[in-house]
Amino acid sequence: MRTANDTANNPTIAIIGATGAVGAEMLDCLESAAPADAEVRLFASERSVGSHLSFRGTSIELEPLSSAAFDGIDVALFASSSDISREFGPIAQAKGAFVVDNSSAFRMDANTPLIVPEINGGLLSTAPSLVANPNCTAAIMGMALWPLNQLSPITRVVASTYQAASGAGAAAMTELEDSTRAYLDGQPYQPQVFKHPYAFNIFSHNDTVDLETGANGEESKVMDELKKIMATPDLRISITCVRVPVLRAHAISMSIETEAPISVDEARRVLSAAPGVRLVDDRANNHFPMPVEASGQNDVLVGRLRHDLADPTGRTMMAFVSGDQLRKGAALNAVQIAAVLCGWG
Amino acid sequence: MRTANDTANNPTIAIIGATGAVGAEMLDCLESAAPADAEVRLFASERSVGSHLSFRGTSIELEPLSSAAFDGIDVALFASSSDISREFGPIAQAKGAFVVDNSSAFRMDANTPLIVPEINGGLLSTAPSLVANPNCTAAIMGMALWPLNQLSPITRVVASTYQAASGAGAAAMTELEDSTRAYLDGQPYQPQVFKHPYAFNIFSHNDTVDLETGANGEESKVMDELKKIMATPDLRISITCVRVPVLRAHAISMSIETEAPISVDEARRVLSAAPGVRLVDDRANNHFPMPVEASGQNDVLVGRLRHDLADPTGRTMMAFVSGDQLRKGAALNAVQIAAVLCGWG
Repeated sequence: MRTANDTANNPTIAIIGATGAVGAEMLDCLESAAPADAEVRLFASERSVGSHLSFRGTSIELEPLSSAAFDGIDVALFASSSDISREFGPIAQAKGAFVVDNSSAFRMDANTPLIVPEINGGLLSTAPSLVANPNCTAAIMGMALWPLNQLSPITRVVASTYQAASGAGAAAMTELEDSTRAYLDGQPYQPQVFKHPYAFNIFSHNDTVDLETGANGEESKVMDELKKIMATPDLRISITCVRVPVLRAHAISMSIETEAPISVDEARRVLSAAPGVRLVDDRANNHFPMPVEASGQNDVLVGRLRHDLADPTGRTMMAFVSGDQLRKGAALNAVQIAAVLCGWG
Repeated sequence: MRTANDTANNPTIAIIGATGAVGAEMLDCLESAAPADAEVRLFASERSVGSHLSFRGTSIELEPLSSAAFDGIDVALFASSSDISREFGPIAQAKGAFVVDNSSAFRMDANTPLIVPEINGGLLSTAPSLVANPNCTAAIMGMALWPLNQLSPITRVVASTYQAASGAGAAAMTELEDSTRAYLDGQPYQPQVFKHPYAFNIFSHNDTVDLETGANGEESKVMDELKKIMATPDLRISITCVRVPVLRAHAISMSIETEAPISVDEARRVLSAAPGVRLVDDRANNHFPMPVEASGQNDVLVGRLRHDLADPTGRTMMAFVSGDQLRKGAALNAVQIAAVLCGWG
């Protein structure tokens, strides 16, 4: 098994699912994060094999996925389906690679660390060979919740999301743009990715709804994963996940109850100091976190900090957060995990 | 002072602000709601005076507003600014008209009833000469909350909104369409109505933010007005108001705590039976309230009913609602109030 010492220099990094929205963003993140002497190999489904993507000015040919493909790979970033991760993740591990998996396949597996480096990156010190990358909404929410949790343990979260198209992949982003243009032109449009119209519309998250509880799959993931990432199994969290016509940054409205009251100034102070977080909380100018300003950014934007005046105990803080779904919500976090595992500068 | 008996037949109905988004929608609502022999008069600002709008196949000329304009008016529907309502509302009253005011001028005035007919329409039995029409979000939320409140008193609401452009008027709807087209065409666009980009973006509601509490004006209105409409002064309600790129139907995600547990089946039953409400709650087909289906409809859509599993007492119900901001959120509700006051239909 390789260790950080082996992979800090001249690593071979594979992206599995390199043509998807997350895979392409991983390649972009590696431009700045990977060591100068890194080699990158890109794997994609049959229909993309043979085409090329650019990395640091070099054209890289897309390869077909196979067991043999993992020979000599030091770090394998999986950005494909859960099925692909389940099939090839263990093979990559067995061949000595660090695996960082963006699918949900292993996230709730008790033996697999689920990591947001700023929150529980310490778990990477044992150099686990398989690490799960969280659900995008869980990662973005966690970035705002964790610094507050250090001030006083969070006991309750009630959240509603404003989720972008990118969470459903590049085809969903295209569908949002195409269907919106059709609407503006007065033309009909038949949705391909979503079952509901997306142009100037919002709808309940497209993940399957549990017929018994009424929660959808996305909501269950966020609730379960946040508790695991923050190691707060007793956190009472409830969430409603909604798609909005935004391209690539999620937003979340949160009511956050803590054990002890937190002042707005204290909250601003810890969030301002938190790595990976940018405070955007300007009441006078009505300037708060927005997808248009979070898109393409590594930092998660947090603001609209205010006490819930309906809680007479003063223990409930309201907050609004926006983060790039493809960066901190997916690719950036995965590359950050790889960087810690491999000891990249 | 006129009474319902005087105004049931051959009423003269005025719309003040007839060219705005709400005023135009009032005219549309009157097509079906006003008695067959009703006369309609339309008032607008100087730049629209002399142009015409159509009502039941007749062309009606827009008139300038003045004190004398209210001579002979039986019902005055105000859909203009608070300043206009404060100036001309009392004049219309003094001249014997029923005034229904869509502005916020008189909503929290202790002597002015604030009415959603399905909730507190009984207050109209005294034939008040001035009635306030609620904030759009308050009216739409109230339609979902009130039937549940009949099952068991609601003690706590935590809500986040997804608000359409129409709430900021016709110019905001145009800005959403124009800026979106510009974005898709790769062209620059300078916002005129809002200070933030609207194309594929969401932002905190544009109403002024209280520098002390952090709540914006829209949030304060919704919280204050809902308590007045439902006559629940002790209701603990907190809300985050957000604009989303949707044209004319609002949506609200709610966590609703009641004194006693309510089953999902009971909630569905009372909401199905509630006038003005349509239950849209199909878990198997992931079909829940959406702006695209609420737009142009009189009914408020309610669904995604489920227990909050993080509340072990079983007293918290989650719900999602969508209603046309211009109809039940404004014009329809105002015309319904006029219909009750005047004994139409």
